[in-house]
Amino acid sequence: MSTYSPSVTRLINEFAKLPGIGRKTAERLSHHILRTGKEDALGLSDSIRAVKENIRHCQTCFNLSEEEQCGICKDPRRDQGTICVVEQPRDLFSLEQTGTYRGSYHVLLGRIAPLEGIGPEQLTIKQLIDRVRSGTVNELIMATNPTLEGDATALHICEMLTDSSVPVTRLARGIAAGSVLEFANKAMLSDALSGRQKI
Amino acid sequence: MSTYSPSVTRLINEFAKLPGIGRKTAERLSHHILRTGKEDALGLSDSIRAVKENIRHCQTCFNLSEEEQCGICKDPRRDQGTICVVEQPRDLFSLEQTGTYRGSYHVLLGRIAPLEGIGPEQLTIKQLIDRVRSGTVNELIMATNPTLEGDATALHICEMLTDSSVPVTRLARGIAAGSVLEFANKAMLSDALSGRQKI
Repeated sequence: MSTYSPSVTRLINEFAKLPGIGRKTAERLSHHILRTGKEDALGLSDSIRAVKENIRHCQTCFNLSEEEQCGICKDPRRDQGTICVVEQPRDLFSLEQTGTYRGSYHVLLGRIAPLEGIGPEQLTIKQLIDRVRSGTVNELIMATNPTLEGDATALHICEMLTDSSVPVTRLARGIAAGSVLEFANKAMLSDALSGRQKI
Repeated sequence: MSTYSPSVTRLINEFAKLPGIGRKTAERLSHHILRTGKEDALGLSDSIRAVKENIRHCQTCFNLSEEEQCGICKDPRRDQGTICVVEQPRDLFSLEQTGTYRGSYHVLLGRIAPLEGIGPEQLTIKQLIDRVRSGTVNELIMATNPTLEGDATALHICEMLTDSSVPVTRLARGIAAGSVLEFANKAMLSDALSGRQKI
């Protein structure tokens, strides 16, 4: 390692901090940066800086946005009365890519994870409850991850809304399209059985 | 894609330009940058910029360096009479990591590749010949890649030095340590047979 000069060593260390990037890949990426044109390399550098400086959270739904309100909250064609609750902005992007949902969102910015010291107050649950209590909401769709922590977060929100008349649903569970029964685990199959639908 | 704001889209595109980084990974890295602390994100941004601004090629051996001469060329404990010729700086780093070579290097900054329009004049071959002709060189070790183009480049340099008395060697070829004969291909095995050594 001592053969790398200080700036290269620093670049390798910075790349290695990224998720899924090990030491070898970080070295390969650094050599690419060293070899590539100055314009391309600075393009990456500048776009990282721009993102950190321009992007904030939408005041309403906490989606990523370059303005006070995100494009979805400002869009009059979207049904602002239906709120889909997700853990992270990337979950929102995944749902958007299906192109089938026309309501609005609420990003919790995490899930309740007592082992990591993340409680309800670190999330945007209070703001969600305020939105629901404002009276303009017709349905709340829980789209937290189908994990222990995701389910617990959804349950916690449900419990805080027991006195409200707004119906709360959650994403359907079952076998995933394109998968094979052979490799489905017990939890998937019992979800699929208990939620069986008429054809 | 339209759901990403312009700066995020730009960041994803910049990440996707890196070698071995596809669209999905670029999105994952971008979400990491969005989620991570400002300090970490700007650390990466700044180190990319610093590398492009600080790093140049050593005037003697064309290794990457932050000064006019690289650490290896300046080191009085290194044997400046032995020159190991490599294609890229990363080959030099790989050799250095073995810790067994105590001579100096010459980085060609590529290999002769007629199909890509890279001829001898685009490489640092002329500077290498000048170094050899200066009279202080005792041995030239060819460490170009064991490929058609690497071999052709080494051969070209040898031919340019036929009138010189400096001995030219190349890295040993054979079966790789830790490999199994079962998976060795014909070229490896015939190299190993023709270069067999006494035990």
